[in-house]
Amino acid sequence: MIKLNSEYKTFGGKLGFYSHFSSSCNSEMRFAVYQPPQATSQNVPVLYWLSGLTCTEENFMIKAGAQKYAAEHGLLLVAPDTSPRNTGILGEDESWDFGTGAGFYVDATEIPWSSHYKMYSYVVEELPNVIAENFPVNLDKQSIFGHSMGGHGALICAMRNPEKYKSVSAFAPVVAPMQCPWGEKALSGYLGDNKDTWSNYDATELVKKIGFHSPILIDQGTADSFFQQKQLLPELFEKACAQVKQPLNLRYQEGYDHSYYFIASFMEDHIHHHAIFLN
Amino acid sequence: MIKLNSEYKTFGGKLGFYSHFSSSCNSEMRFAVYQPPQATSQNVPVLYWLSGLTCTEENFMIKAGAQKYAAEHGLLLVAPDTSPRNTGILGEDESWDFGTGAGFYVDATEIPWSSHYKMYSYVVEELPNVIAENFPVNLDKQSIFGHSMGGHGALICAMRNPEKYKSVSAFAPVVAPMQCPWGEKALSGYLGDNKDTWSNYDATELVKKIGFHSPILIDQGTADSFFQQKQLLPELFEKACAQVKQPLNLRYQEGYDHSYYFIASFMEDHIHHHAIFLN
Repeated sequence: MIKLNSEYKTFGGKLGFYSHFSSSCNSEMRFAVYQPPQATSQNVPVLYWLSGLTCTEENFMIKAGAQKYAAEHGLLLVAPDTSPRNTGILGEDESWDFGTGAGFYVDATEIPWSSHYKMYSYVVEELPNVIAENFPVNLDKQSIFGHSMGGHGALICAMRNPEKYKSVSAFAPVVAPMQCPWGEKALSGYLGDNKDTWSNYDATELVKKIGFHSPILIDQGTADSFFQQKQLLPELFEKACAQVKQPLNLRYQEGYDHSYYFIASFMEDHIHHHAIFLN
Repeated sequence: MIKLNSEYKTFGGKLGFYSHFSSSCNSEMRFAVYQPPQATSQNVPVLYWLSGLTCTEENFMIKAGAQKYAAEHGLLLVAPDTSPRNTGILGEDESWDFGTGAGFYVDATEIPWSSHYKMYSYVVEELPNVIAENFPVNLDKQSIFGHSMGGHGALICAMRNPEKYKSVSAFAPVVAPMQCPWGEKALSGYLGDNKDTWSNYDATELVKKIGFHSPILIDQGTADSFFQQKQLLPELFEKACAQVKQPLNLRYQEGYDHSYYFIASFMEDHIHHHAIFLN
């Protein structure tokens, strides 16, 4: 059972904000869905967006300007929240880069986080089923993209589940969480000290082990302060892709920062990239 | 002197958020400017956006998706805040539809508002000069549009200053403030009881007296609750335009509401409308 909290007509389609009880996360979760006009007459492909630190299910739908292109290509957009909220875990709201708004798309194994923070299973398993039960979609055609922490999420979900996703792309993704402060904090907090487990959630490790069946598109702004602070490390991912001959289109965008103003500027290209594999 | 508070590259151009001391409003005012890529090599036309109740200079730039089309057509976008803020006037923050965030684009004559609330002069006189002094623009090519209270503002600014503006359009504008609750509250509060003064700020009255030299484009969503509550009254403006043979393209957009999701859906059409008269 999902609950519709608000709904808007936009670009000829329908944008809804929903909540439901997630069995993976054992708590309420929220997500947004944009149904393109085509969805009134046929089952359409699904494109998932995973957001970055501190975001909710709203940011992407308000700021990215994606609906126009989803409507043009007939894709249903799904944007989940970035973590469970109000779980009652002590300290969940203490950091902006851990806990609430910072689920990092992993299945936590460490107490107390393991009782609720199962964002990997939520995104890969539960949410697609919820979407299929409630919206006119074709689950044989799914793709995934995201921003920053959500770019990390998109890459790991896609590489670990190549049969589920036709294509993947990212804006300013955290591609080597084992080697940056955000990632070290999140992976140690959610997964404990065993770095073998961490590597299942590190795109740079995964591409060397698994790779992906279609070319990966990544945009990175050169004026992005988190890029400059070595939280993102696209150069490591690029090197790993080169090692294993993984097709990668990494574009450094001169002068762009980490904001949705950057994302919106290249949204058309990303949705076009996915539409090629989905339509 | 204007102060740059933040700046972002977007769609190949530059978005800045500014503050300055306004002599019209005798207080700090804020505005946002999007400089299209063309502005690095030539003076470009200016398109002003006036926002609705409760908005700041940010809403439009975050939500409307206008930068893409401004970049395509080489237009500089300017979005001022909707009122002075923190003026110290007693009760300025008491209502969401009067005072802060609700300047209604009039020059207040009533004490205490008359000491700061001069949004009409600010938009029509002071702001264009500030823009001309600080940005590469061609003030012979200006147009104006807006939403709700700002649609009202755009229409009255354009009709009263046909030599300044090449074109005007609006989303869900308040077109007959003398005949709706929002307008009655604002006009009586800012201008007192003399309804002759009010009529200078009422688009439906002005079009009968003055008209405008180019066709007016208006989009109105049919699921807009403020339309249903008779705050907007496009039918009165349509009737007045018909009386005086003012060319009007009033489009009722089925199922759309009052939000920026509606605005974004038709932004391309509006910017195209202005580009025809500006380029």
